[in-house]
Amino acid sequence: RVNSDRLWDSIMEMAKIGPGIAGGNNRQTLTDSDKQGRELFKSWCDEAGLTMGVDQMGTMFMTRAGTDPDALPVYVGSHLDTQPTGGKYDGVLGVLSGLEVVRSLNDLGIKTRHPIVVTNWTNEEGARFAPAMLASGVFAGVHTQEYAYARKDLDGLTFGDELKRIGWVGDETVGARKMHAYFEYHIEQGPILEAENKQIGVVTHCQGLWWLEFTLTGREAHTGSTPMNMRVNAGLAMARILEMVQTVAMENQPGAVGGVGQVKFSPNSRNVLPGTVVFTVDIRSPDQAKLDGMRARIEKEAPKICEALGVKCSVEAVGHFDPVTFDPTLVGRVRTAAEKLGYSHMNIISGAGHDACWAAKVAPATMVMCPCVGGLSHNEAEEISKEWAAAGADVLFHAVVETAGI
Amino acid sequence: RVNSDRLWDSIMEMAKIGPGIAGGNNRQTLTDSDKQGRELFKSWCDEAGLTMGVDQMGTMFMTRAGTDPDALPVYVGSHLDTQPTGGKYDGVLGVLSGLEVVRSLNDLGIKTRHPIVVTNWTNEEGARFAPAMLASGVFAGVHTQEYAYARKDLDGLTFGDELKRIGWVGDETVGARKMHAYFEYHIEQGPILEAENKQIGVVTHCQGLWWLEFTLTGREAHTGSTPMNMRVNAGLAMARILEMVQTVAMENQPGAVGGVGQVKFSPNSRNVLPGTVVFTVDIRSPDQAKLDGMRARIEKEAPKICEALGVKCSVEAVGHFDPVTFDPTLVGRVRTAAEKLGYSHMNIISGAGHDACWAAKVAPATMVMCPCVGGLSHNEAEEISKEWAAAGADVLFHAVVETAGI
Ligand SMILES: NC(=O)NCCC(=O)O
Ligand SMILES: NC(=O)NCCC(=O)O
Repeated sequence: RVNSDRLWDSIMEMAKIGPGIAGGNNRQTLTDSDKQGRELFKSWCDEAGLTMGVDQMGTMFMTRAGTDPDALPVYVGSHLDTQPTGGKYDGVLGVLSGLEVVRSLNDLGIKTRHPIVVTNWTNEEGARFAPAMLASGVFAGVHTQEYAYARKDLDGLTFGDELKRIGWVGDETVGARKMHAYFEYHIEQGPILEAENKQIGVVTHCQGLWWLEFTLTGREAHTGSTPMNMRVNAGLAMARILEMVQTVAMENQPGAVGGVGQVKFSPNSRNVLPGTVVFTVDIRSPDQAKLDGMRARIEKEAPKICEALGVKCSVEAVGHFDPVTFDPTLVGRVRTAAEKLGYSHMNIISGAGHDACWAAKVAPATMVMCPCVGGLSHNEAEEISKEWAAAGADVLFHAVVETAGI
Repeated sequence: RVNSDRLWDSIMEMAKIGPGIAGGNNRQTLTDSDKQGRELFKSWCDEAGLTMGVDQMGTMFMTRAGTDPDALPVYVGSHLDTQPTGGKYDGVLGVLSGLEVVRSLNDLGIKTRHPIVVTNWTNEEGARFAPAMLASGVFAGVHTQEYAYARKDLDGLTFGDELKRIGWVGDETVGARKMHAYFEYHIEQGPILEAENKQIGVVTHCQGLWWLEFTLTGREAHTGSTPMNMRVNAGLAMARILEMVQTVAMENQPGAVGGVGQVKFSPNSRNVLPGTVVFTVDIRSPDQAKLDGMRARIEKEAPKICEALGVKCSVEAVGHFDPVTFDPTLVGRVRTAAEKLGYSHMNIISGAGHDACWAAKVAPATMVMCPCVGGLSHNEAEEISKEWAAAGADVLFHAVVETAGI
């Protein structure tokens, strides 16, 4: 079993960097806090004797050598970036449990045949720069590096410039590394494991996603002196599209979700009807046909809603991944480890996207999950217990060592 | 008749300060641009021989002496602040036409019995600090100065601190001045005069307004891993309230408007259901019963909409004025002036709020209006012609001189 106190202390130490306003974290990607988080993580890796490689997307690869010079490494990773009002565990648990696997191996004096690479992927959250899982997406060949570098935050700063600014542009070609296997340990971020009273989620699939960014163009006009029948009201069109997305998601139950997290009115003044409203629809399903069907329906109905109001509607897909099936052999090793350790477990489909979803394109991959209180995530109140954290780290340890070979 | 070229040139000169992004202006109240605009206006007033008084709300009172030391002044004013994406004429036309009245009197060597005070009210727009017409509201005793000083912009800066920062806290007690009469000349900001092909709007009334600021509290949660039935979706509640406001306004036709100009999602991240949505509803009617009826209905239905979604709803009135009836004697003088000058005219109800609405509480007051292209205002594309501008200024000149006495 891993050292649960050490793991927990490291998580709490990392949480001091980029504190939030309500007990969680605001350590968004490529900010000064992200830079600080990277430095702290690197110092721990140095102590553990790992050697660092950094690729041109800023992803950190921290290697513990194996005994077989020809054996490809086993990767264990997640992300240290957070949402603007994120929790202390989302991503961090996975990276620091990877480190804990290595620290425990050091304690035990165990050498593995395959090297083990603890990985911190850049911009998993996609909060500052859409899409999510950006660095792992470039790694897997889904996006070009040029596309990634050109992504902009709400202030118009680009990913490329900000990566340079914090000094984390590495020299490795992105995706040049070959993986023997990829493991990711993460909190569930949903309510199922807690409700079913299970310690471990054996992650068999991940649901797919579309992020559709709508730009609605109305006519900016005075809220007082513009008669109702002369309005070209982009805000009203947005409201109707939000309701329609809700309807589409409800009609695809069970196994689908849909919602809107980001809305921007321009000029956003109380007495001006918005000239432009930009917002992002997030729809997901583990069922490819449902996922694409929801997208098609939303893209068909939204322009009709807008047309009826005289509003111009344009839509761009700013994030996407298909539903993923994880590698059955690795999934089996996670299940076996949970059984051997006596932890209750169940199969689960990830509701959130993870770097594992892109890694699965280029290597056998899977995930381990632990419950989180009330299924709450992307909220500073996100919570887990030390015991929950440790159980998943134990399972990760055994599955990784099994895969890396002794 | 006034000097239409000089008036137009001054408007164009002022428009160079705080340029917008599409031909209009962003000279929001208490910004550096506002400060610059005030300085330019003051330099013109100095040239015209006016003496300045400034009150503790930063309102500028530029006085041309009268011949009777006991006669109260006639005030002619409007505002130099703009919306974030405002036009070149909204407010500016009124202030600079006041100046043009004085310049023309100087040219003609005419002395009036009552002094004439050209006035630039602080924060008429209410874009940066709600409510609109803030300084004239304090002047008329509707708000306390403490209330005004504590108003915050979206960055949390207060009116009081920003007024101090730009160096325009005057020493006059707000509201200490007594007025013989108040005139305000403004573009219509609506479509009626142009549609009716009239040069002059004789403003008999102004419709009343409520600004209702809603704060909806849902549960911040992951858009992917939070099942539909576990969501406490403040964004969806906002959408439903927007639709309800539209319905309420439509059911009160004719003679009512309702809409939403400002929406703020928190944390405003694509993959986070908003924990909080703050937005402002703007409803107006010239009919007091309709206005208050709409407010009551919105405040009754919004909590029901929220309750059905488990969302917490709170509402605060952040702006209000009752419908206004302008002084019949002054209204008559405006009409007579238009007739004498041979300008086509019609009675009109102001759709927008104006400082004249508050001035009317403490003095006989009225307004003059000219058309604007397509009824468009609070839009950088706001447009009028030099001839339209001059016709209203001529009417203003005659009505003011008639009131100030020779
Ligand atoms: N795990 C996680 O929250 N990733 C962010 C991408 C997503 O929205 O699913
Ligand atoms: N004239 C004008 O646009 N004033 C701003 C206050 C309002 O919204 O009516």
